[in-house]
Amino acid sequence: MIKNTMIDNQVTHKTIRAFKNQNLTKEQVVTLVEVARHTSSSMFMQQFSIIHLTDEKKRMYVRKISGQNYVGANGDLFIFIVDLHRNQSIRRQLGEDDGRLHKTDIFLQGVEDTVLAVQNMVNAAASMGLGAVILGSINNKPKELLNVLELPKMTFPILGLQVGVADQMPQLKPRLPLDAIFFENEYQEINIGDLEEYDKIVQTYYDLRDSNRRIDSFTKQVSSKKLGTKETKRDELLKTLHDQELCLE
Amino acid sequence: MIKNTMIDNQVTHKTIRAFKNQNLTKEQVVTLVEVARHTSSSMFMQQFSIIHLTDEKKRMYVRKISGQNYVGANGDLFIFIVDLHRNQSIRRQLGEDDGRLHKTDIFLQGVEDTVLAVQNMVNAAASMGLGAVILGSINNKPKELLNVLELPKMTFPILGLQVGVADQMPQLKPRLPLDAIFFENEYQEINIGDLEEYDKIVQTYYDLRDSNRRIDSFTKQVSSKKLGTKETKRDELLKTLHDQELCLE
Repeated sequence: MIKNTMIDNQVTHKTIRAFKNQNLTKEQVVTLVEVARHTSSSMFMQQFSIIHLTDEKKRMYVRKISGQNYVGANGDLFIFIVDLHRNQSIRRQLGEDDGRLHKTDIFLQGVEDTVLAVQNMVNAAASMGLGAVILGSINNKPKELLNVLELPKMTFPILGLQVGVADQMPQLKPRLPLDAIFFENEYQEINIGDLEEYDKIVQTYYDLRDSNRRIDSFTKQVSSKKLGTKETKRDELLKTLHDQELCLE
Repeated sequence: MIKNTMIDNQVTHKTIRAFKNQNLTKEQVVTLVEVARHTSSSMFMQQFSIIHLTDEKKRMYVRKISGQNYVGANGDLFIFIVDLHRNQSIRRQLGEDDGRLHKTDIFLQGVEDTVLAVQNMVNAAASMGLGAVILGSINNKPKELLNVLELPKMTFPILGLQVGVADQMPQLKPRLPLDAIFFENEYQEINIGDLEEYDKIVQTYYDLRDSNRRIDSFTKQVSSKKLGTKETKRDELLKTLHDQELCLE
């Protein structure tokens, strides 16, 4: 393994969910957003936007949607938006039709632009000594989130990112072994027997989110309710994308 | 702006498309993949895999699909795969049904896991002094790509990443102004008049990809064929996802 400050941060990356009661400085916010702004984008179309959510009421609504009490509590909350609306608007102002903007192809390019920017900002935060948590839970109620954020068609808020001064020190969460996710030339099937050792290791991890209890083994988590059949508002996701006129074909 | 080595790299990020005829060392490859492996993942489901493509025949096929002569030429080529197959396989080996794995919700979580890992690897490469190019073009022919890589159902190769020793020094590509993509609490509509200055700046950029010619203004690129209606194999993307049993509802 090659070692430098960035890589040390990356291979010991821990999600921070508890922050000190202390907002980022304006300089910190601008630096983080400047980093996001300089992320690579597909075809140079730059199809994402970021909303810095400082309004306490909106933060509370997002917290309720996510169902996680740390969301919109201490720390600064950024909402990352797949934004095909901006380019649609530019095209229309120039007298053009919507072209390929309603296709799944372009939506996925927008998702890629957006998610690349999220990780770039996470790494910038780490380099500044800040902690961060990526929030998929903002989409626990996709339609409600769009309403709270008053977003136009052709946009979709895909991830939140909360950044602040860490007020906890979690353990490093053990990831799948390298040979389970990394292959030379050919995809390799997983054999559950090969995950026995990993399953044991995962059970030694204490989850600060969950009253410091040990967590289930990886294969148990996969086979349990996390991916199990259940009704949830997250099932509205595809319909919500269509309502936003995204991914139509 | 806060300054440190990582942030300096990030705000001056340039995509590298020409690499020296020199492969990464094994240590460099392992370091990059270890970084990817430690990326945050949605619900800890770790739904991505990476194929290191060293087989010359496969690299050539991917180059043909992408239509870009630098793909699979010098440098190391990694294919990032949204992988819901692994967890499906684990569930089945444990006697469970596929649960929510065919839903758009879970597919998008897999996309997020995968794309976060791509950017994490890009940043690691930069910290090691290496250059990189993210390759959306591997999906110019989605079905052919699946065939070349011999991938099972419930997987989808979403991005390539080529990493190597830079053999070019591109200009910094000017990004949209901050206030066009970053908002406080409320989404802001774009007014094309506000992009006049930016359009001028973009035209001063020389694209090394394109015989060192100046490029079109941003709004012209948006209104032109990049997003314009045309038939392309990329239109197969949604059907290909469905054939892969992904995003079914």
